[in-house]
Amino acid sequence: MKKILVLNGPNLNLLGTREPQIYGADTLADVERGLVEQGARQGAEVSCFQSNHEGALIDRIHAARLDGTHWIIINPGGLTHTSVALRDALAGVAIPVVEVHISNIHKREEFRHHSFITAIAEGMICGLGVKGYKAALNWILERG
Amino acid sequence: MKKILVLNGPNLNLLGTREPQIYGADTLADVERGLVEQGARQGAEVSCFQSNHEGALIDRIHAARLDGTHWIIINPGGLTHTSVALRDALAGVAIPVVEVHISNIHKREEFRHHSFITAIAEGMICGLGVKGYKAALNWILERG
Amino acid sequence: MKKILVLNGPNLNLLGTREPQIYGADTLADVERGLVEQGARQGAEVSCFQSNHEGALIDRIHAARLDGTHWIIINPGGLTHTSVALRDALAGVAIPVVEVHISNIHKREEFRHHSFITAIAEGMICGLGVKGYKAALNWILERG
Amino acid sequence: MKKILVLNGPNLNLLGTREPQIYGADTLADVERGLVEQGARQGAEVSCFQSNHEGALIDRIHAARLDGTHWIIINPGGLTHTSVALRDALAGVAIPVVEVHISNIHKREEFRHHSFITAIAEGMICGLGVKGYKAALNWILERG
Amino acid sequence: MKKILVLNGPNLNLLGTREPQIYGADTLADVERGLVEQGARQGAEVSCFQSNHEGALIDRIHAARLDGTHWIIINPGGLTHTSVALRDALAGVAIPVVEVHISNIHKREEFRHHSFITAIAEGMICGLGVKGYKAALNWILERG
Amino acid sequence: MKKILVLNGPNLNLLGTREPQIYGADTLADVERGLVEQGARQGAEVSCFQSNHEGALIDRIHAARLDGTHWIIINPGGLTHTSVALRDALAGVAIPVVEVHISNIHKREEFRHHSFITAIAEGMICGLGVKGYKAALNWILERG
Amino acid sequence: MKKILVLNGPNLNLLGTREPQIYGADTLADVERGLVEQGARQGAEVSCFQSNHEGALIDRIHAARLDGTHWIIINPGGLTHTSVALRDALAGVAIPVVEVHISNIHKREEFRHHSFITAIAEGMICGLGVKGYKAALNWILERG
Amino acid sequence: MKKILVLNGPNLNLLGTREPQIYGADTLADVERGLVEQGARQGAEVSCFQSNHEGALIDRIHAARLDGTHWIIINPGGLTHTSVALRDALAGVAIPVVEVHISNIHKREEFRHHSFITAIAEGMICGLGVKGYKAALNWILERG
Amino acid sequence: MKKILVLNGPNLNLLGTREPQIYGADTLADVERGLVEQGARQGAEVSCFQSNHEGALIDRIHAARLDGTHWIIINPGGLTHTSVALRDALAGVAIPVVEVHISNIHKREEFRHHSFITAIAEGMICGLGVKGYKAALNWILERG
Amino acid sequence: MKKILVLNGPNLNLLGTREPQIYGADTLADVERGLVEQGARQGAEVSCFQSNHEGALIDRIHAARLDGTHWIIINPGGLTHTSVALRDALAGVAIPVVEVHISNIHKREEFRHHSFITAIAEGMICGLGVKGYKAALNWILERG
Amino acid sequence: MKKILVLNGPNLNLLGTREPQIYGADTLADVERGLVEQGARQGAEVSCFQSNHEGALIDRIHAARLDGTHWIIINPGGLTHTSVALRDALAGVAIPVVEVHISNIHKREEFRHHSFITAIAEGMICGLGVKGYKAALNWILERG
Amino acid sequence: MKKILVLNGPNLNLLGTREPQIYGADTLADVERGLVEQGARQGAEVSCFQSNHEGALIDRIHAARLDGTHWIIINPGGLTHTSVALRDALAGVAIPVVEVHISNIHKREEFRHHSFITAIAEGMICGLGVKGYKAALNWILERG
Repeated sequence: MKKILVLNGPNLNLLGTREPQIYGADTLADVERGLVEQGARQGAEVSCFQSNHEGALIDRIHAARLDGTHWIIINPGGLTHTSVALRDALAGVAIPVVEVHISNIHKREEFRHHSFITAIAEGMICGLGVKGYKAALNWILERG
Repeated sequence: MKKILVLNGPNLNLLGTREPQIYGADTLADVERGLVEQGARQGAEVSCFQSNHEGALIDRIHAARLDGTHWIIINPGGLTHTSVALRDALAGVAIPVVEVHISNIHKREEFRHHSFITAIAEGMICGLGVKGYKAALNWILERG
Repeated sequence: MKKILVLNGPNLNLLGTREPQIYGADTLADVERGLVEQGARQGAEVSCFQSNHEGALIDRIHAARLDGTHWIIINPGGLTHTSVALRDALAGVAIPVVEVHISNIHKREEFRHHSFITAIAEGMICGLGVKGYKAALNWILERG
Repeated sequence: MKKILVLNGPNLNLLGTREPQIYGADTLADVERGLVEQGARQGAEVSCFQSNHEGALIDRIHAARLDGTHWIIINPGGLTHTSVALRDALAGVAIPVVEVHISNIHKREEFRHHSFITAIAEGMICGLGVKGYKAALNWILERG
Repeated sequence: MKKILVLNGPNLNLLGTREPQIYGADTLADVERGLVEQGARQGAEVSCFQSNHEGALIDRIHAARLDGTHWIIINPGGLTHTSVALRDALAGVAIPVVEVHISNIHKREEFRHHSFITAIAEGMICGLGVKGYKAALNWILERG
Repeated sequence: MKKILVLNGPNLNLLGTREPQIYGADTLADVERGLVEQGARQGAEVSCFQSNHEGALIDRIHAARLDGTHWIIINPGGLTHTSVALRDALAGVAIPVVEVHISNIHKREEFRHHSFITAIAEGMICGLGVKGYKAALNWILERG
Repeated sequence: MKKILVLNGPNLNLLGTREPQIYGADTLADVERGLVEQGARQGAEVSCFQSNHEGALIDRIHAARLDGTHWIIINPGGLTHTSVALRDALAGVAIPVVEVHISNIHKREEFRHHSFITAIAEGMICGLGVKGYKAALNWILERG
Repeated sequence: MKKILVLNGPNLNLLGTREPQIYGADTLADVERGLVEQGARQGAEVSCFQSNHEGALIDRIHAARLDGTHWIIINPGGLTHTSVALRDALAGVAIPVVEVHISNIHKREEFRHHSFITAIAEGMICGLGVKGYKAALNWILERG
Repeated sequence: MKKILVLNGPNLNLLGTREPQIYGADTLADVERGLVEQGARQGAEVSCFQSNHEGALIDRIHAARLDGTHWIIINPGGLTHTSVALRDALAGVAIPVVEVHISNIHKREEFRHHSFITAIAEGMICGLGVKGYKAALNWILERG
Repeated sequence: MKKILVLNGPNLNLLGTREPQIYGADTLADVERGLVEQGARQGAEVSCFQSNHEGALIDRIHAARLDGTHWIIINPGGLTHTSVALRDALAGVAIPVVEVHISNIHKREEFRHHSFITAIAEGMICGLGVKGYKAALNWILERG
Repeated sequence: MKKILVLNGPNLNLLGTREPQIYGADTLADVERGLVEQGARQGAEVSCFQSNHEGALIDRIHAARLDGTHWIIINPGGLTHTSVALRDALAGVAIPVVEVHISNIHKREEFRHHSFITAIAEGMICGLGVKGYKAALNWILERG
Repeated sequence: MKKILVLNGPNLNLLGTREPQIYGADTLADVERGLVEQGARQGAEVSCFQSNHEGALIDRIHAARLDGTHWIIINPGGLTHTSVALRDALAGVAIPVVEVHISNIHKREEFRHHSFITAIAEGMICGLGVKGYKAALNWILERG
């Protein structure tokens, strides 16, 4: 049974609580519930974690090495562009990663165009809204 | 009924004919057939076009404005990084776009990290192999 | 009798068919007809060519060397910023050039601020709308 | 009746007094007289001002806000590349501007390729010699 | 008795005469009067000078060395980003400086992010509107 | 009644405990007490928070959205130059911000010249020592 | 029997028809004939192709994979500096390449100093005039 | 008696648990124990701290100012390249520092070539494996 | 009889009035008197001009074309690094120039390392104190 | 009779003594002997010189001006990328040069992509192994 | 028995002869003697070489390949930042290297932050004074 | 009695032997003789040294520390732009330096605009031809 960890970084806990016309009315809890259920339907165990603390995210990634996680789906929020430590954590545990961004980061400020994560990820999805997580999960589950 | 155009740029006609251990054994024809069938099953009309000629791709995009195309899925190949004209064609016809790359372009040479297309696309998917096209199509069809 | 070639690059065939409040209602055909008539009135032969294909534009420029063209007015569209080959074609035939852009390219994205063509052109006009072509033609004809 | 101000920056007072084989024999006085007459013929009032002092040019631009000037044609000379204050003056009075350069600044030194003015101008003309002023005036007068 | 000079550079004479919804209805004269009165109340002599001429500002700064000025509050306008001579004048008279900008220059164009003045100023205030001058004066007067 | 949050980032807890000849003898507790009292005198509720943890600062900012904070005064310390997540937190809660730096960051190392915060702040004050906080608070309270 | 394809990109069809004092009197046809004959003498089959169309060059390279070509000698003209698609085509067919430039591209404009092709070529020859093609062919034939 | 603090940043807790052929079989606990024993033998008190949290490392550094630490040996992991706050903490407590990296960071990705720490450290050792810590400790102890 | 103009730009009027231990006790008047006398002794007419106004310097340079000046010695002060207009004035009158800087500008801030003037000057002298003017004059007079 | 000097810079004396599978078994002595014999067969005098000392290479180049050398073939080794003095020596003696690199320097580290020599050479050959010298010699001899 | 070569580049012969308060009173001879003795005590043969000539250093490195040297400790002095030839010599002989700098090169001028040597060295030590050599030797000898 | 060393770097031995219309007919021997005589007349001992070898120049500079040299006049030739070791030698012996360049290096290629020497020199003279040496010597001798 596939074990998948969904990680969300700083500020993603605000999801769905403001600007619903842009981000939709789905809260992070809604999104996480949807992914857990989708996983359950397709025979996979999905667990979710969000933190505004870089260190807590790294601790969680290290734990994933021990609890048998097979894949990580990560939206690192603002840490995408600044955290070498997060990249090293993901590379260090050697669990394959799919990176997701809700918005199209290449339409935004110049400093959001570079991600420290993508170069160590299998793939990256951006701009598909919260459905990007689902697309990532689908792809992982279909790989068999 | 949704009308979707799948565009592939230079060299994507080589798909599936070499290095199958990397790219898989699927040819472009296989991929295109799969997308057309997926569309048909979900009530959408998918048509496909590949060319090694920038001008031919632009002509095809212009035609899409006239034939009622609702969405374009594009993998511009090497033109991703060099063609302002292709970007202008997509922006000029004002049809929403999802950009797809089979490989993770951010793992490759520096000059592949910038895309002229992403800034005018709704979203971008890279590194998911040929299944990236399917993920793009799924997302479009699910938007209702 | 002066022989003048008016070249338009990718996407300029879309002119006048959308966003008339910005670009006006004139189509490329209207613009070209106006230039031909203006030329005829002032004793010059104006011919026009548009293509979305870089190669076709280069072929046409090469032909201009043989058909006795004295001046080229060119709006290279998106190729302005990316095509060394187009520049080399213009420099190769050694026909003097006036570069025209309908919009003010220096008000737009950073990547539109550099033109490969200007350095080999006599002059450049931008931001005057489709009347920029007319200003270029006027200037050529007044040089006597 | 349209009121148009023609501004020339540092060193343009030298026009026509040297290197006539390059710049022609027209002095700045000749050019200014031609523009005034052209304006008069077409029912517009053209006034001219040249200074080697950035501050004097700014003062003159401020005055234009009060005297009802409708358009400014400006050749800022060397200030083109270095004066944010001149740009701010033009933007501050909110009078539309056409920028003119006698030579093709993109054929010259790298530091002449950037203009602080173009981004706040309607359009820019370069390389057409002193006839560039006339082309600018024509265009303004033809806009009706 | 503290002697304070308030300097304003190019275009700040336009203050309050346009776009009151943005900049407020206060003219430069209003602002200067306010500062003079505030100084008088707190036992300081405030004098004010504005010019669109870099040279006139430098001359005034030199004069400040002779007239016993203790502090300079300066909003150099567009010269902020381009004038080494102004910086050298301030450094040359060795009078301490507080730099003020009405708008937040770091929210504006890239070329406004660098100031030649800040590195030789005691401090810098931006984005607080015309009240930034008052904040600067307060701070100077409170230093005792 | 206005509710204002004063945030201090990493290392600002060291304030006043060393190099008093430079930073003065005021500790962070002194500064915070002064601001709370100043607020109380002028009918505003000022609360203060310092942390060396980026995540804790973000958590506190998120809490401010719920507790009705009207303004944030922030000195992000070293995070100023490196934290996109902090910027996103401030932008995400949409509470207006004034950025304060005790020293003049533009006099220091090159890497301190860029702030991720300023572009989303109303204004910025630097180099006024610990009195910069007071100037920020004054300005907020005077806006009425 | 070795099969060698000689490819020439945009504008090389102009060879020999102008500036013979610089480029010599040899036309592209002369050069191609010389290479075919040299190949024939040494037991190799040389075929030649020139196009001003990037897409046509890519199509021809793809065809080379099927017709058993062992080596490609290419002078990509202006595409050298701008075409990722051409590079991908050459890399995609995995036929070894020698790059040739008639002039010394490192003596020319800065933008000609970078080639997208060299990094995937075996070697590069520039500045030897049209004899550079011959040197490339010699080298290939001597490798045995 | 010398008091020395050994700090390790994010991901160094993974040491010795994977890729032993590269990093050796020593865990961080082994390394720390070795340093404590080495210190004890030479009359110094060595204490060790590792955290994946930037804030926790800063807190620990601040504590070192109070507990009389004479030297800090630090391997900041990924924070090396991104944390100004960590640098400021070390500079703020004014305890001399030796920086250690297990691998040769100058052989790795470009973004690992710059360290915010080195400029405020006494010295730096990289590429000597876990023995780099020992070399740093030796050097400190031999300084007498 | 050789006619030589000595020009000094912004802030050089402060010379000798402060920091005599660095710049010496010579005022600008002293320096100018010395050069005039040196010229007179060697049969040359030296005249001097200083201004803090860029425009006044340009006006003076233009006048030099008319009054038969053979050489210009210029210390442009802070305009060295920012004024294209000054450069254009010097180039425009085609009088040969020697550039002088009292201090060694290459030992100072990065932005002082580039001069717009040097590229159009015969030679440049820096770091020799006020004796640099004398060295320049000597050299001119010895050329015969 | 043509007189040709073959120069090899630092480390090329190691040729053929290691990694024969890459560089072949030919020593520098072998290569030099081959070139001398080839020259002799075609009526040219080839002499060879290798040094690890920049100064010795420059001395040898200077000597070539006196001994009547007509052409220089040079592989400057690592000095290619760093020695302006070597470039100046070659330019100073005004003997035409062909630059040779055994490996394809554009496939290697970024710092090897720039050569100080190419801009003053007639042509450059890289990546053809030790046969690059032969190709250079052939080309020189065939020029007649 | 391990054979170790200690190389010192330009200006290191000045060691100990000036600024003893900074560099200590140890001359290079003292340092070298200490290393030889340390080696002897631990059963290794240490030999030393210093030169101000890049070429002499390269010659010595080449000789090391023949005399059976197992390790090189090198302080390349100013060549660190400029010599590709020295790097190629070290890489060419394939003897493992430890790089040592007496001062902390990352605290000094920007141009000293990059070393051509580090990327081909096992490790690097800087800022530990002349004891850095000893630390390097220790490490080599302890590897067994 | 003042002792002055005149150093010339690579290629300056070619002086006067070619392009006399540019560099004059003076050989380096002529220039050196003139300086020695000028020194003798003014009671100073001038000695001269030229080498194409960086190491030899450094050795000579080191010797100057021992032989009591008071000043060095140096024209480092091409080493100006590339030799940190030469700079370190000059700084290491702490003898004051005047840098001389015969041509105006700021009129030449971009890479000649930066000198490693100027930042540690008292002053720099360029573009005055071989008389630049004399101007440097004059200045030194006049300092008394």
